[in-house]
Amino acid sequence: MAYNVIPLTKLIEQFERLPGIGRKTAQRLAFYVLNLPREKAQQFADAITEAHDKIKKCRVCQSLTEGELCPICADSSRDGSVICVVEDSQDVLAFERTREYHGLYHVLHGLISPMDGIGPDQLHIKELLARIGSGEVKEVIMATNPTVEGEATAMYLARLLKPMGVRVTRLAYGIPVGGNLEYADEVTLYRALEGRSEI
Amino acid sequence: MAYNVIPLTKLIEQFERLPGIGRKTAQRLAFYVLNLPREKAQQFADAITEAHDKIKKCRVCQSLTEGELCPICADSSRDGSVICVVEDSQDVLAFERTREYHGLYHVLHGLISPMDGIGPDQLHIKELLARIGSGEVKEVIMATNPTVEGEATAMYLARLLKPMGVRVTRLAYGIPVGGNLEYADEVTLYRALEGRSEI
Repeated sequence: MAYNVIPLTKLIEQFERLPGIGRKTAQRLAFYVLNLPREKAQQFADAITEAHDKIKKCRVCQSLTEGELCPICADSSRDGSVICVVEDSQDVLAFERTREYHGLYHVLHGLISPMDGIGPDQLHIKELLARIGSGEVKEVIMATNPTVEGEATAMYLARLLKPMGVRVTRLAYGIPVGGNLEYADEVTLYRALEGRSEI
Repeated sequence: MAYNVIPLTKLIEQFERLPGIGRKTAQRLAFYVLNLPREKAQQFADAITEAHDKIKKCRVCQSLTEGELCPICADSSRDGSVICVVEDSQDVLAFERTREYHGLYHVLHGLISPMDGIGPDQLHIKELLARIGSGEVKEVIMATNPTVEGEATAMYLARLLKPMGVRVTRLAYGIPVGGNLEYADEVTLYRALEGRSEI
């Protein structure tokens, strides 16, 4: 008979389903949670259900929020003439950490990916078009990931948006700060060269 | 106003408390859980509380189990004359995976560590002594980790157990299978040399 404690196995399996968590890490995490005081473990479980129950998409930018409007859309000091289009809410967090962007966001919640059966209709594109339609927006920054799907989505949106009279821009490609030329791939290096600027 | 969704921040913090999970991974995991269907997230939350509610320590070997006795102690085909002493239940899983050990276990649930204020009384040592006292046990294998605390605990137990007339053994030290001599530290290499055997 194998050593198999069903509730423990179940917990390990739950952790194993998380992205980037393998069997051994899942086991370590499950044992850690099991060794927490009962009340701490309950807090963990509650955080999961609460996040699900309380978080919804912002009526305007579609990023995750508790209220009707996310704190960024609700903040009148933000520059409403620029919208940065991102794949998901995590990207919003990444931009906010720079503390250098003061415009608004629009979260697509995905990228166009015919291989996965995701077309433009499954993304929050019509909500973006509605925002541009209001006339306040002057620039839309495409900040999707530099992947095939990210590029395709940016191109698709650019074609839709340009006729609406807004400036459509794309994040710069180049060598990451602190990076090493030696390890940069050819495409990145070529893009960095192409995007060079006067110093 | 920063982008701060309280239930999301709470969930990220919960993941961040797990061992080996940093800020970025915690964020990734929290978003993943948030994007799960409601019912999958509930299963995750339930797995945490259920594991806590249903799992207890085996009356005999102290490893984690659902019933009074763990499946290993309850299995009459296991060799009751050998007990393998380990730090925690994860180690039991590791040994069981080898499929080569057919004796019983004893889980200490910790190691002697004066620095952390953990003395022999906080470990399940008297339960081990009671098992030896029953007379059936012929050998006790010390399988604590090869750390200072693991060694100290093994030494402490060996001193207690030897006078009770049982054989006390220790896991072999050496080069890990598939390891590389070049990367082995001096102590491991010395131990491997010392423990060499005829081929």
